[in-house]
Amino acid sequence: MGRWEPGARNRLAIAALELFIERGYEATTVADIAARAGLTERTFYRQFADKREVLFGDPESYRATFTDAITAAPPEATPMQALAAALTAAGGYFVGRHPYARQRNTVIAANPALQERELVKRLHLTEAVADALRSRGAHDATAQLTAELGTVAFHQAFARWVARDEDSDLGALALAVLDELRAAAAA
Amino acid sequence: MGRWEPGARNRLAIAALELFIERGYEATTVADIAARAGLTERTFYRQFADKREVLFGDPESYRATFTDAITAAPPEATPMQALAAALTAAGGYFVGRHPYARQRNTVIAANPALQERELVKRLHLTEAVADALRSRGAHDATAQLTAELGTVAFHQAFARWVARDEDSDLGALALAVLDELRAAAAA
Repeated sequence: MGRWEPGARNRLAIAALELFIERGYEATTVADIAARAGLTERTFYRQFADKREVLFGDPESYRATFTDAITAAPPEATPMQALAAALTAAGGYFVGRHPYARQRNTVIAANPALQERELVKRLHLTEAVADALRSRGAHDATAQLTAELGTVAFHQAFARWVARDEDSDLGALALAVLDELRAAAAA
Repeated sequence: MGRWEPGARNRLAIAALELFIERGYEATTVADIAARAGLTERTFYRQFADKREVLFGDPESYRATFTDAITAAPPEATPMQALAAALTAAGGYFVGRHPYARQRNTVIAANPALQERELVKRLHLTEAVADALRSRGAHDATAQLTAELGTVAFHQAFARWVARDEDSDLGALALAVLDELRAAAAA
């Protein structure tokens, strides 16, 4: 089996999600996941450091969705405007992924080890957003706090989005939650 | 050795911190920690589920510092005013603990397993603060977002507080960061 497997990350993630739902996270092995995906364990470990990673897709490209939008915002955009562009772009990242996201969320909520990993990824996202805002010239503390507001808004919106049976526009929801957050801050 | 050991949690936490600094987190065993504290491993496991828990003191009493202040705020206080009371109370919780907090922070920053545990504790704190605000009659989303603002402000303030060589008033710093956060949200 060659070094390059088209779509291997996605196939492994989907296979893992199926198995975690069928058998539970603890009872599923990397060998099981690879077999379900029709790939080898070696291919799994070329893609992911361990079983905990398999539901976390490609965190760098996920973070880049936010940071590229911040970088691409017009020079005159305020940090808050650049943040809003990032939330819209992040909504686009999840278009078509609502069924997967809902199942994935159920598995993560049931497994403390996965919840921990999820929280670490959120911290890294906040740091990446803050760095992107700093690179635009935002003051250090402003960049950090604006990034915190953005990731809080996005994750609250995400929680509402996956709680709904029907798909909806995650980017628009994130902007609405950001407005709610700003109203709560102003109260 | 009796079931009740006065100050066992504190003694174990201080012993663990010393050993983590001297030898590293991975190289330190529960047996090492108990021996350094002059206690048995059984006493350790009566106090903490595992080695990862030893630097997390008494999370329930820590969360209660926030939630008791929210509950005790005057009935006419807004969610934001009740939150401010919680931040002040939480500052009081850390009075006299600056040297310990600084060392603990260094150890946690160096160990991914401890960082993960820290993030989970933060999530639980946010949930507890949101629940306390809901119990006062705050609207569900308002309670959640106000709690998020509060824990972001507190943890940002905490990061600045432990970064300073000299002790300072953490409660006052948390209120100042909350004001910065509100200004960032209004920008």
